[in-house]
Amino acid sequence: MNISRECYLCIYKQTLNLTKRLGLDENKASEILRGVGGILSKYGLNVTPPEIAAEVYEFISKATGIEDPFSKEKEAAIKEALKFKDILKKRLEESKDRLYDACKIAVAGNVIDLGVHQEYDLQEELRNIFNINFKHNDYDVFIEQLKKAKNIVYLGDNAGENVFDEILIKELKNYVSDIYYFTRGKPVINDITVKDLKGLEINNLAEVINSGVDTPGFHLNRADKKAKELFFEADLVISKGMGNFECLFGECEREMFYLFKVKCEVVARACGADVGDYVFLKNDK
Amino acid sequence: MNISRECYLCIYKQTLNLTKRLGLDENKASEILRGVGGILSKYGLNVTPPEIAAEVYEFISKATGIEDPFSKEKEAAIKEALKFKDILKKRLEESKDRLYDACKIAVAGNVIDLGVHQEYDLQEELRNIFNINFKHNDYDVFIEQLKKAKNIVYLGDNAGENVFDEILIKELKNYVSDIYYFTRGKPVINDITVKDLKGLEINNLAEVINSGVDTPGFHLNRADKKAKELFFEADLVISKGMGNFECLFGECEREMFYLFKVKCEVVARACGADVGDYVFLKNDK
Repeated sequence: MNISRECYLCIYKQTLNLTKRLGLDENKASEILRGVGGILSKYGLNVTPPEIAAEVYEFISKATGIEDPFSKEKEAAIKEALKFKDILKKRLEESKDRLYDACKIAVAGNVIDLGVHQEYDLQEELRNIFNINFKHNDYDVFIEQLKKAKNIVYLGDNAGENVFDEILIKELKNYVSDIYYFTRGKPVINDITVKDLKGLEINNLAEVINSGVDTPGFHLNRADKKAKELFFEADLVISKGMGNFECLFGECEREMFYLFKVKCEVVARACGADVGDYVFLKNDK
Repeated sequence: MNISRECYLCIYKQTLNLTKRLGLDENKASEILRGVGGILSKYGLNVTPPEIAAEVYEFISKATGIEDPFSKEKEAAIKEALKFKDILKKRLEESKDRLYDACKIAVAGNVIDLGVHQEYDLQEELRNIFNINFKHNDYDVFIEQLKKAKNIVYLGDNAGENVFDEILIKELKNYVSDIYYFTRGKPVINDITVKDLKGLEINNLAEVINSGVDTPGFHLNRADKKAKELFFEADLVISKGMGNFECLFGECEREMFYLFKVKCEVVARACGADVGDYVFLKNDK
């Protein structure tokens, strides 16, 4: 999915917010906003949003000397998400359709974007999650394909969200033997990396894969050879979150299921939904 | 007043909005957002916001071939403002302090920023205007100086607002013989120019001056020789609106009175007020 005009401003806004979150002084903030202005000036409409974001966040890391500017936020988001795990598992035990409800739990986790600032939203999100309706609900096709599958590639998204993915993955394990949980190859925004998952249960349920991508979304050209092979050879691919959708939608022929919450107008237009909608969409091959 | 980090984003946001208002297609919008990214990348913190805005809006004019992108909005804002003129004049006739209330009317006009999109706000603004309290209320000093003055330079701001300035200027004419109403030297955003004032009553009350500035604020270095002379020799200067404040506050030694509504955090911080406050501030010489 290529960028739209709004993406330039969105990335610039993220930059300003980050200069504040990192407590940078006005001079450093100005240096960064000038640098990002220069980066934005280079990109036409023929790129995906995460490709620009990758260069922008790498520039910010270098200019500040902070390799992982969101490390604290990521840690806090995972900690926060873990608080809900037992309650959600209990809710699942009472469920009449465990797999479907686990999909809903996983997509609810997608509300986490910068974790700690959205605690209330997460709680609210989880309260209502079993009553939501998916836009583009391709769950029936999904379950048919799942029954025939032996392995799954699951493209992870943000830190914190992984806890809810874990609940869905546990259910998926009743159907398939192998699940590959893809993470980013290096810290970018608050996206999940192998390091962030250390000590978590998901390591016992799935094979955690460092995809190699430095983009906040699974961009094929940036992926490791092994990750690419697994991706193309998998019986089933679940692409979680907006960043992965932005990198893959319209850019990749292989069949997959997108599972995410729509958080901006550009993605809403691209997938024919409204901001706030939950999407369970099988791409047209 | 120099820019803060927020100004970069604000100008970029204005750019995006303008690409939409002008109905530009995605390719043209991208070209403009890239160009403005490049412009922003050049400016450090040692400039006023209107200096960057001047380059940005000139670039947009050239890139689109539209010399005055806000001409329709300006015309509509003046038309809208004129609807309120008789009502406000009548309210003034019943006033116990005509001059003070006329100052309030003038500052209420400062709510107009892009005119037509804010019709309801203008109506609401005018409904409550006589009950407002000024932040930094230097009206008492102002009236003392007015009683001794023979002429006034009045720095105009946006189109539409001029109608309310006119009401104040009519009152000021009871005190002084000569009033110079300064406009911008060329179209920039929705700021008032000599051309926009054609046929309006203000031409009979004040001498309308083309200040020569191409910035959306009275920037001394950009002003004509004559405008500069009038400005420095005037017995009293009223600087209307945020753009003029941004260009002059802390940049110019001469005594003057700033009259405006605070519309952003950066200006709020600079003048020690909150967003939404009305300011009647004498600068420290």
